[in-house]
Amino acid sequence: MGNGRKAIKRIGVLTGGGDAPGLNAVIRAVVKSAIREYGISVLGFLNGFGGLIKNQVRELTENDVAGILPRGGTILGTTNRDNPFHYPVDRSGERVFVDVSDRIFENTSIQEVDALVVIGGDGSLAIAKELYDKGLKLIGVPKTIDNDLHATDQTFGFDTALTTATEALDKLHTTAESHHRVMVLEVMGRNAGWIALHAGIAGGADVILIPEIPYNINCVAEKINYRSSHNKKFSIIVVAEGAKPMDGEVVIQRRVEESFDPIRLGGVGQVVAREIEEITGKESRVTVLGHLQRGGSPTAFDRILSTRYGTAAVNYLMEGRYGHMVCLRGTDIDTVPLEEAINGQRMVPLDSDLLKSARQLGISFGDTD
Amino acid sequence: MGNGRKAIKRIGVLTGGGDAPGLNAVIRAVVKSAIREYGISVLGFLNGFGGLIKNQVRELTENDVAGILPRGGTILGTTNRDNPFHYPVDRSGERVFVDVSDRIFENTSIQEVDALVVIGGDGSLAIAKELYDKGLKLIGVPKTIDNDLHATDQTFGFDTALTTATEALDKLHTTAESHHRVMVLEVMGRNAGWIALHAGIAGGADVILIPEIPYNINCVAEKINYRSSHNKKFSIIVVAEGAKPMDGEVVIQRRVEESFDPIRLGGVGQVVAREIEEITGKESRVTVLGHLQRGGSPTAFDRILSTRYGTAAVNYLMEGRYGHMVCLRGTDIDTVPLEEAINGQRMVPLDSDLLKSARQLGISFGDTD
Amino acid sequence: MGNGRKAIKRIGVLTGGGDAPGLNAVIRAVVKSAIREYGISVLGFLNGFGGLIKNQVRELTENDVAGILPRGGTILGTTNRDNPFHYPVDRSGERVFVDVSDRIFENTSIQEVDALVVIGGDGSLAIAKELYDKGLKLIGVPKTIDNDLHATDQTFGFDTALTTATEALDKLHTTAESHHRVMVLEVMGRNAGWIALHAGIAGGADVILIPEIPYNINCVAEKINYRSSHNKKFSIIVVAEGAKPMDGEVVIQRRVEESFDPIRLGGVGQVVAREIEEITGKESRVTVLGHLQRGGSPTAFDRILSTRYGTAAVNYLMEGRYGHMVCLRGTDIDTVPLEEAINGQRMVPLDSDLLKSARQLGISFGDTD
Amino acid sequence: MGNGRKAIKRIGVLTGGGDAPGLNAVIRAVVKSAIREYGISVLGFLNGFGGLIKNQVRELTENDVAGILPRGGTILGTTNRDNPFHYPVDRSGERVFVDVSDRIFENTSIQEVDALVVIGGDGSLAIAKELYDKGLKLIGVPKTIDNDLHATDQTFGFDTALTTATEALDKLHTTAESHHRVMVLEVMGRNAGWIALHAGIAGGADVILIPEIPYNINCVAEKINYRSSHNKKFSIIVVAEGAKPMDGEVVIQRRVEESFDPIRLGGVGQVVAREIEEITGKESRVTVLGHLQRGGSPTAFDRILSTRYGTAAVNYLMEGRYGHMVCLRGTDIDTVPLEEAINGQRMVPLDSDLLKSARQLGISFGDTD
Repeated sequence: MGNGRKAIKRIGVLTGGGDAPGLNAVIRAVVKSAIREYGISVLGFLNGFGGLIKNQVRELTENDVAGILPRGGTILGTTNRDNPFHYPVDRSGERVFVDVSDRIFENTSIQEVDALVVIGGDGSLAIAKELYDKGLKLIGVPKTIDNDLHATDQTFGFDTALTTATEALDKLHTTAESHHRVMVLEVMGRNAGWIALHAGIAGGADVILIPEIPYNINCVAEKINYRSSHNKKFSIIVVAEGAKPMDGEVVIQRRVEESFDPIRLGGVGQVVAREIEEITGKESRVTVLGHLQRGGSPTAFDRILSTRYGTAAVNYLMEGRYGHMVCLRGTDIDTVPLEEAINGQRMVPLDSDLLKSARQLGISFGDTD
Repeated sequence: MGNGRKAIKRIGVLTGGGDAPGLNAVIRAVVKSAIREYGISVLGFLNGFGGLIKNQVRELTENDVAGILPRGGTILGTTNRDNPFHYPVDRSGERVFVDVSDRIFENTSIQEVDALVVIGGDGSLAIAKELYDKGLKLIGVPKTIDNDLHATDQTFGFDTALTTATEALDKLHTTAESHHRVMVLEVMGRNAGWIALHAGIAGGADVILIPEIPYNINCVAEKINYRSSHNKKFSIIVVAEGAKPMDGEVVIQRRVEESFDPIRLGGVGQVVAREIEEITGKESRVTVLGHLQRGGSPTAFDRILSTRYGTAAVNYLMEGRYGHMVCLRGTDIDTVPLEEAINGQRMVPLDSDLLKSARQLGISFGDTD
Repeated sequence: MGNGRKAIKRIGVLTGGGDAPGLNAVIRAVVKSAIREYGISVLGFLNGFGGLIKNQVRELTENDVAGILPRGGTILGTTNRDNPFHYPVDRSGERVFVDVSDRIFENTSIQEVDALVVIGGDGSLAIAKELYDKGLKLIGVPKTIDNDLHATDQTFGFDTALTTATEALDKLHTTAESHHRVMVLEVMGRNAGWIALHAGIAGGADVILIPEIPYNINCVAEKINYRSSHNKKFSIIVVAEGAKPMDGEVVIQRRVEESFDPIRLGGVGQVVAREIEEITGKESRVTVLGHLQRGGSPTAFDRILSTRYGTAAVNYLMEGRYGHMVCLRGTDIDTVPLEEAINGQRMVPLDSDLLKSARQLGISFGDTD
Repeated sequence: MGNGRKAIKRIGVLTGGGDAPGLNAVIRAVVKSAIREYGISVLGFLNGFGGLIKNQVRELTENDVAGILPRGGTILGTTNRDNPFHYPVDRSGERVFVDVSDRIFENTSIQEVDALVVIGGDGSLAIAKELYDKGLKLIGVPKTIDNDLHATDQTFGFDTALTTATEALDKLHTTAESHHRVMVLEVMGRNAGWIALHAGIAGGADVILIPEIPYNINCVAEKINYRSSHNKKFSIIVVAEGAKPMDGEVVIQRRVEESFDPIRLGGVGQVVAREIEEITGKESRVTVLGHLQRGGSPTAFDRILSTRYGTAAVNYLMEGRYGHMVCLRGTDIDTVPLEEAINGQRMVPLDSDLLKSARQLGISFGDTD
């Protein structure tokens, strides 16, 4: 830890990347414990790293964080853009990308911020790692509704997203059953299928399609027909937005266009529904949750996890454990070096206990297993 | 009322058309009050008019309806097909449509069913009207999540659908705000915009697009830009699935294809989001609720309305008021002749108090008003 | 209407009496439509009539009401005290009650407030009536979770309270059933049983005890025993806090103390549970919802009703319809003179359609009917 | 493991002790994985150990468990009574307690049940341990909403109970704030304060009183007064039902009666509210959640945990790991010998990270810390 150890009198906090329920709970915990436990002040940087670059700040007092615990979103704003090491500027009418990270050091110096709490997903934490390497004292807090971060058992936001998806499945269930229909629910998960897998188990899905297991649409149809022949006239399918068919198995979209482009057709959920309808002759309907999964009041679980992360982040900062990310190990809060934390996404392991549990219940993953 | 007045000893009940929260509550109220109040028995016909045609029935005792009050769906099944006056049969390899309504008279006779409670929307009630005209003793119960039936102040199912859409808007709000994004929520309403209008007001939408008011996408974009310039960096748009642009105002889809086909592009929500993104340069995201709005546990309001409809339907049947539909007038339950009830859909009146209230709050309907 | 008709340039708004979900929605609608539709400004008086008396105010801009639509409570604060015609002051060490209503005229004059929107229940509206009679230009908005106001079909807040109570019954149901127990839910309703009656029907209660129908505990026990003998080993009882036993029927508390004092014993719910346990030998458990029923995010229904009330209140004020209260008549917003509005509480009529519907389903009201 | 290893062809399952959300999800997972994965049949014993003693059973097919995943309660019934080693019988008019455990061996033999899944809390698992010691092949599944079982990181049911309590706090918050009141929420937890501690943190409570930390009512009052003087006119207190005052600190009840009997006064919540009112002069209101915390649809978390426990229980039974209980370790499912599992209740450790986190946020536990 090459960063000097002068006393911390003021810390900064920012939220980066996609919105996730619990961001406000972390901010609140950071502010309250900084002020009450250590008597130091807190400055919020606005809109992710953008605020650090543009010196957009707001002082955060206990009053500012009163009542935000149950609220979705982030009072600091957030964005997926504004990478200080790859920042877009217009030069002679052309957009080029430059390194503006020095501005961050200037701005933290101007604002007399001694250390930083960076709340974000893998993208934001990778930037944090680079800033730390350049000498900025900081600690990371893991956030992503996808739960696909290495080095922590759980990120905050995931439990709420999962709850939203499960409630959707509960609603679709009764209608599917009354109508003898196939209901398709498309959920988030571009690369990892955690939300689809968990929600599918919690919501009693019959088929779960995730990026980790390419699907064969005929296997899906077979499952639906098997149920029909066993007097289950309806089926529920959960599809992660990043689910992909096995090679040579795409039916409809091939006819329509050359390349597989689910967005063009309204998402992979639409594709699956149409193919199922075509193969099985059963009416199929699609619900696309979209950003619904990023919003709403965090669940009790996420509020507690966020609060623990927030207080721990301040404690570890005050101890000087810079360049780390707080994480959950079983029931305990711990830290892990940032470089470990950002080292690749966590996928659903094909031999995971949860996946086996799902198969044992008869859930199909659209493969031949 | 040419129908004879012999004593009713057994009544039948069926649910027709699209699923709606509260169907089970009506069934329960019919069964309980028939058995307890009048000592008569109840037979459920399965899957809408299909069960009447195919003689698929199930006896309904108090035990059968225990615990179904809070459950979505219908224990009798439902379908949009199986019109007895236009029933598909295969003749010499060809599909033709014939009148099989006589079977219904045979089957009710075989089952010794003296009168019928038909729970359904305008389609099902129109069929009920024809059957009544042919001599079947029956009463209708108005159901549709769209709330677009004439002759009743409210249908059951609407309050629950509205609640689902409003909760979705609550969730989208925080994310839109944190991200400075435009969020588009597509809700049900092919011809009438009741859900979009009510949910938009309840959920604090900035723009509401309904079939009754063709929209100009530039007016929508203007509203969003106006908000941006007044430091509201996000906007929430509710779009009824039947919303349509004014002539000559469609931007994107014209380039892509000849005819306006929102389904092909993943729904009008997708179309609006892309056009907004193109015109304003702001990131836009879409959520399509779909059948989510038909499912789930009915709200307290819908459970009470359904229960009142169910008990009233039995009371009126026993009084011999056949060929009517129960309805809500202010706070009272009344009836109205079926022919009045099915006489055209109820649209959002352009001079309605609710619409004016919405405009007064600054909500845009995408027109120049 | 003896009040002069000079142009209104600024209006005041206050919230009085018990908290109710939807207060913020009304405030928001008042502020937005005053500013946008009429270009006038709005001043909020804090903590009911207290703010009017003590000149405690806060300017309300559109920013101040952004985001408050879905929030319970009131940003203006509220209280049941501070009646300007009966205001407590300490005089020579003794508390006396005096008329300080002149201060209100002074303060509205100082603040240049031309007219007032008073949001409240019967207590607050009675005070408003007196102030109007003294010359204050104002309009009332009916609020009470009890729904016991005359002259309006519905007050806002009631639907949310009802929803909270119904959700509680849903939760108690599964546990009662699994455990073969009697579950007692005590809900609000000191004089009128609207919440208990509606929630009982919506939540599938077996017994509903309301102030309007004195109960005989033996009739209640009989109902429970009847169910047990018909293989329903559990029962659900909803008790309004103001429910009272018929004379001579109180069992336990007579032994314990002279007078009937449910508060002393932890509420009438506790009393009923103990007596049932004693008479039937079945384990009984109590849940007391208390102020839970006043809190939480308003339902979609309450948000829309509140919004309509708020915009209508401003419209009618601008028209000069002072001394009235806005009200709901069927599906329309109208007004009624304040003197009619406050003329006695609305009780559950013993011949109401809803009550009959409930009895028809087999719900007992603890009487011999 | 002295139990022989003949092939298992049929297993039994029972649910014992208090109701908890997730019981049905475990039953469903047991049934589905037994039938699908191992081709064996499942018999449900009714009403806890009572069904084993009285030979009350019901065959469980896949159809029987269809749709029960999201439902609270247990389709098998449950009870806290019927300990086979201490079973009440009437002998010559007197109630005596005898060991009837032999009947269980007879009945499992009659029913050809080879092994048993016992779902229950510490009481039920202690009985299971004794039965195992006598030679019954069985495995335990940990259930308690209190989360106070040793040897597992989490029991199912806790997350749902916590969610119910947190939602209650959310509702009380807005009302407390609008009214400047003290709101007291009494939650479950006779010996351990897990629900109160977690819900208090998730719901933003100001004071949390748990059995592990005897409270001084003056410290509680001090916290409330401190807040008042810092312009926070309201406070939220969460009280576990087993919370106890330090010696000599009880104010009101001492005057009323000799012994501390919160039940008599309507629970410790009532006691705390009255004392606070007396000391601080602030109005205080009480909500008693009671069995609400045991009911309702399980959260997504509890459904997944229950499902994993159910499939794992069958897998381990088939492997012959008898006399164990399945448990959660971090993110993995494992087992632990029953004797370890039932070895005393798990209390909130006074040095726990969660407790420290709460104190750091300024939450008072009513002690002088």
